[in-house]
Amino acid sequence: MTNVSIIGLGQTDVKEHWQTSLRHLAWYAIEAALDNAHVNKVDGIFVANMLAGPLSGQQHLGALIADFSGLRGVEAVTVEAADASGGAALRQAVMAVQSGLMETALVVGVEKMTDVVGSPVTAALALSLDADYETVHGMTPAAVGALLMRRYMYEYGVEVADFAGFSVNAHANGAVNPLAMFRNKLRADRFTSAPLVADPVTLFDAAPTGDGAAAVIVTSHERAQDMVPQPIRIAGSAIATDTLAIHDRKEMLWLAAAHQSAAKAMAAAGVGHDDIDVLELHDAFTVLAALSLEAMGFAERGEGWKLARDGEIGKNGRIPISTFGGLKARGNPGGATGVYQIVEVARQLRGEAGDNQIAGATIGMAQCLGSAGATAVTHVLSK
Amino acid sequence: MTNVSIIGLGQTDVKEHWQTSLRHLAWYAIEAALDNAHVNKVDGIFVANMLAGPLSGQQHLGALIADFSGLRGVEAVTVEAADASGGAALRQAVMAVQSGLMETALVVGVEKMTDVVGSPVTAALALSLDADYETVHGMTPAAVGALLMRRYMYEYGVEVADFAGFSVNAHANGAVNPLAMFRNKLRADRFTSAPLVADPVTLFDAAPTGDGAAAVIVTSHERAQDMVPQPIRIAGSAIATDTLAIHDRKEMLWLAAAHQSAAKAMAAAGVGHDDIDVLELHDAFTVLAALSLEAMGFAERGEGWKLARDGEIGKNGRIPISTFGGLKARGNPGGATGVYQIVEVARQLRGEAGDNQIAGATIGMAQCLGSAGATAVTHVLSK
Repeated sequence: MTNVSIIGLGQTDVKEHWQTSLRHLAWYAIEAALDNAHVNKVDGIFVANMLAGPLSGQQHLGALIADFSGLRGVEAVTVEAADASGGAALRQAVMAVQSGLMETALVVGVEKMTDVVGSPVTAALALSLDADYETVHGMTPAAVGALLMRRYMYEYGVEVADFAGFSVNAHANGAVNPLAMFRNKLRADRFTSAPLVADPVTLFDAAPTGDGAAAVIVTSHERAQDMVPQPIRIAGSAIATDTLAIHDRKEMLWLAAAHQSAAKAMAAAGVGHDDIDVLELHDAFTVLAALSLEAMGFAERGEGWKLARDGEIGKNGRIPISTFGGLKARGNPGGATGVYQIVEVARQLRGEAGDNQIAGATIGMAQCLGSAGATAVTHVLSK
Repeated sequence: MTNVSIIGLGQTDVKEHWQTSLRHLAWYAIEAALDNAHVNKVDGIFVANMLAGPLSGQQHLGALIADFSGLRGVEAVTVEAADASGGAALRQAVMAVQSGLMETALVVGVEKMTDVVGSPVTAALALSLDADYETVHGMTPAAVGALLMRRYMYEYGVEVADFAGFSVNAHANGAVNPLAMFRNKLRADRFTSAPLVADPVTLFDAAPTGDGAAAVIVTSHERAQDMVPQPIRIAGSAIATDTLAIHDRKEMLWLAAAHQSAAKAMAAAGVGHDDIDVLELHDAFTVLAALSLEAMGFAERGEGWKLARDGEIGKNGRIPISTFGGLKARGNPGGATGVYQIVEVARQLRGEAGDNQIAGATIGMAQCLGSAGATAVTHVLSK
């Protein structure tokens, strides 16, 4: 159990924000989080981002965003761990507050992946793979997803159609989230006939890239209780890593880092699987959702897909996931995604999730992955 | 005063490492630091890097370097704050250990800037400037240095030759550091006739880019005392920021972040200017050395250059700087530079600086800057 609690939440909608710059997106989320926490300053900013360098020609975001958000001078750095950057940045904020070296810390995840002229988005995303052993051979994140999915189908005797439930659930939840990128429902029978991205991964299987920013403000639990009516405790927090190149892993279908970071965070929080009312996981591809459920211990190995088939991941299921649409329907703005997950779980625990509310949620968990689980960051939140 | 101490140091030489990959460089420094600390594992790794994405096609360095260094699975992230990344990563490690969430943390700064085919190094370095208001107009770090130097000369009535002392001192110290990129002495009378980089900045004024890696291992002070004969205490630690674009600053010749972070770190450490026996500062350009001395309070405004003229920055001077050659002669491997500074100050305090030793050094300070002081990270170390 950490001594750190969330007191402020902010987020923009996820979409193609062609009219809005990277710094504006970050500012909108920060402004909303400051308002939400009823504070006008913080002691430090942790920016989560993975693609501003290659796609916007801009690094050094800490100082830039601090200044642009009216917080010139404040301590600020960028934290990068590919698509797990958002969770990783929150982890730094937790350590900063827990150390006593900061009273209040702000985490902002921001990414601008569309509206890039001559956009090399796929090449930029591939920066998260192993450059010398994967990317050099033309690998992309979608190709890695395809390799994992094909192997999963082979090992466990399942078909593409068996993954449909993940996307159907994500879109059902995204459809009632006003901030989601895709608000259309998805029919299961359309899943298998969607255009291929990287065989067998289809357009309805892969999460979309998008632009967006989300922010979270944390402080010590003692201070939090005096500041806001419903502080959300960060009960557990952990990062674990694995090889970047999936061929280096002893078992390709076992997300060791996802397992390890979830086990650590749950142990720190003192919670078991049955205690968790809501779970945001890294459904960049449906096979990653299945493998994540297995690695985190919500399903036996080779059986993660059954939770989707059996409706156990739905709003009223045993372990609701992607409750605001997940990466698949809310959208996956890279380094910001992990912060969106935290905002969403916190909204569930506050009872502020509107049409996306999971009734009676008191404990939630969020896990984001960098590439195919080379980094895994897990946070357990409690009311 | 933090509760964190340094127990291990490692570094490679700085040069054009054409035979050595980014991951190998990091590993060599990590291996040396682990040996030096007499440990074979750590609880977390903070990688400092700014250019592996654009120059090596590789991000997500935390997991990659953890794995390649034989530490697969361990918590690991990248911390980026342009050329201040090294100091910023150490700051995260300090918070991690101080929080109690890690017992032992490793910081590794690594950068590979040469041996890049079709190298856009200048464009990559410009990612640390303001993309929308500076880079778009063709600004580069050297151009920013030139603007600052020209303005400094105008405001304070000094000539190019008046900056020579900084480079002469750096090269004198670099000449006896076996790990320095440039080991040649520099004659003051050659300073003004060097080829121009960006008028008035010359080749003998600007620090060279280079490849290298440096690593530091920290743990709690209590544990450190049992582990190594000479733990080096991190007495103070602070980050401050300023605008990226220098035109946004009220006073172009005042490095507000450098001032603020030094003042905070010195206050935390409880030391004054006279207590500091050795100072590593960000001499990417001589004008930055002068401005840093002024911002940190070692010289009055407009008089930083006099410390170089009067020999006060030399080995036996009032405030020795760039004691192993500084950025100018040891070399400036971007995100690794801030970690080199820490390794060097710690070696001075241990009395292990060889021909570069400052006699009787007990308190040292290191400050690295991101671009022209948009980020400033200061650490005070004590014996």
